[in-house]
Amino acid sequence: MHIVPEARIAELVTAEAAFTAVESVFAAMASGAAYNFPVVREALGHEDALYGFKGGFDRSGGALGLKAGGYWPHNLERRGLINHQSTVFLFDPDTGRPTAMVGGNLLTALRTAAASSVSIRHLARPDARVLGIIGAGHQSHFQLRAAAAQRPFDKVIAWNYHPEMLPRLGETATALGLPFEAVSLERLGAEADVIITITSAFSPSLMDAHVRPGTHLACMGTDTRGKQEVEATLLARATVFTDEIAQSTSLGEAQHAIAQGLITQDAITPIGAVINGTHAGRTSEGQITLFDGTGVGLQDLAVAQAAVAAAIAQGIAIEVSV
Amino acid sequence: MHIVPEARIAELVTAEAAFTAVESVFAAMASGAAYNFPVVREALGHEDALYGFKGGFDRSGGALGLKAGGYWPHNLERRGLINHQSTVFLFDPDTGRPTAMVGGNLLTALRTAAASSVSIRHLARPDARVLGIIGAGHQSHFQLRAAAAQRPFDKVIAWNYHPEMLPRLGETATALGLPFEAVSLERLGAEADVIITITSAFSPSLMDAHVRPGTHLACMGTDTRGKQEVEATLLARATVFTDEIAQSTSLGEAQHAIAQGLITQDAITPIGAVINGTHAGRTSEGQITLFDGTGVGLQDLAVAQAAVAAAIAQGIAIEVSV
Repeated sequence: MHIVPEARIAELVTAEAAFTAVESVFAAMASGAAYNFPVVREALGHEDALYGFKGGFDRSGGALGLKAGGYWPHNLERRGLINHQSTVFLFDPDTGRPTAMVGGNLLTALRTAAASSVSIRHLARPDARVLGIIGAGHQSHFQLRAAAAQRPFDKVIAWNYHPEMLPRLGETATALGLPFEAVSLERLGAEADVIITITSAFSPSLMDAHVRPGTHLACMGTDTRGKQEVEATLLARATVFTDEIAQSTSLGEAQHAIAQGLITQDAITPIGAVINGTHAGRTSEGQITLFDGTGVGLQDLAVAQAAVAAAIAQGIAIEVSV
Repeated sequence: MHIVPEARIAELVTAEAAFTAVESVFAAMASGAAYNFPVVREALGHEDALYGFKGGFDRSGGALGLKAGGYWPHNLERRGLINHQSTVFLFDPDTGRPTAMVGGNLLTALRTAAASSVSIRHLARPDARVLGIIGAGHQSHFQLRAAAAQRPFDKVIAWNYHPEMLPRLGETATALGLPFEAVSLERLGAEADVIITITSAFSPSLMDAHVRPGTHLACMGTDTRGKQEVEATLLARATVFTDEIAQSTSLGEAQHAIAQGLITQDAITPIGAVINGTHAGRTSEGQITLFDGTGVGLQDLAVAQAAVAAAIAQGIAIEVSV
């Protein structure tokens, strides 16, 4: 089997490769060729850690396995390690034998950014020119880089609960050649054509009234019961898409609109159906589209496969007999 | 992290080491220091394979991780590989970083045999002299070897649905210096002091009337809804112990007695309580004790830890940076 260490991922997996892998597995999920297993997620009662497994099987892409790991909130302060720790394990679907172990930390950021950029490619207006970002943490930089490749944006505007973090996001915009401005939520909603939310908030920052017709939103932060980034009524006004409906309604951004009876599960479309052409996606200029990105194990397997293929091709993969 | 290949497990993990590891983790489960995560088990719809994850955390033993793998029924005929394929992955509970990957096939047989031998150590009569085995497949040999270390048996008697498989089990008994005889179920029940059932049957072979007072039974084969090795009324007559109550009542041997209202969950005791001394275990000569061994992820982690420690000590572990 092959081992691809965390430290080599950056040179092996481009945002474009992550895009292709995630787009393809979303399509497979919608066609029924791929499915995710039940998620195991445990509060260990040790180091305040959350730990678990996200697995799945993609028959069309040949991916079988899981991402194992979680969140150790004291890693940085106590040990100088990053708090998110995960590893992807791949297996041969024909035999059950392990084929690869891949560092999963950077892959997680890449696959999450790839998911929102897939939604922008397929759902944002072709003439979108202003990109709005809510959130300025670690993942916001990946989101910005991946989104920038999908439309010829001429400006980035951003808001964050901690405004002092925004200048660093501005540096990433500048590196991409894009003007950057920190703005109010009102201005962000009034000017952005595409809005990415990438926070870990438990109450909405972006309100329904902020958002103008024609906007595409990629809500990427909500992955747990109770979290919320946008006002629930916005989901009733928008056409809602997601990676996986079961997660969207239970722990994604749509959980609140569902719980309040503002929308039903039938109103949510897997983004893979748009990729496959079985759903029209955006059908008018003034339509608001909203992608509820909850994060599924198959995304991790797909980008890990890409990492392994690149590592083998470049002679970087470590080979061990097991 | 360290890698311990499947091919090295045989020289690294003795039945005694597996016994110690499993006894210790059963004790930790009963004291609340260790718990198993929900089991993921999926029929893939590919190669007729079953695949999944059994994970857990033992705070006292420092074990965190999972066994991933399953059953590929066509491996042997189509590819010359064994049908059961599994791998154990261990993580550092303090940081979430992966620490070891260990071949899990032989470990699975060792930890299952260790579980029944732990039950024999703690529940069989001290003067037990005749060991009965029902089943003659791959795992029966491990069961026989592990059990033989727990009491000074002077004879092994066995029954199997396919009697032509019994001579091979007899060879294992002979290698241990034990006389061996293939017998009827009636004779097996009438003569054995300890009975191990290790089949994958879906209807009972050993009936209540076969079993005499004072017998200890280790029912090791039932790990799925619908499987059954002994008549359900026997569980009402016996004092019932298990590795994990939730599994015992839902997919272990006790599922039938529970479903038929013959016993309640309260009548089942974790074997760890006997190991810890918080339950008296066997209290009379004539008592029938029955251990329902369902198999939990923590057993796999415990024996994998033992394998890693031995591999590091002997310089066999492969070290890789991840």
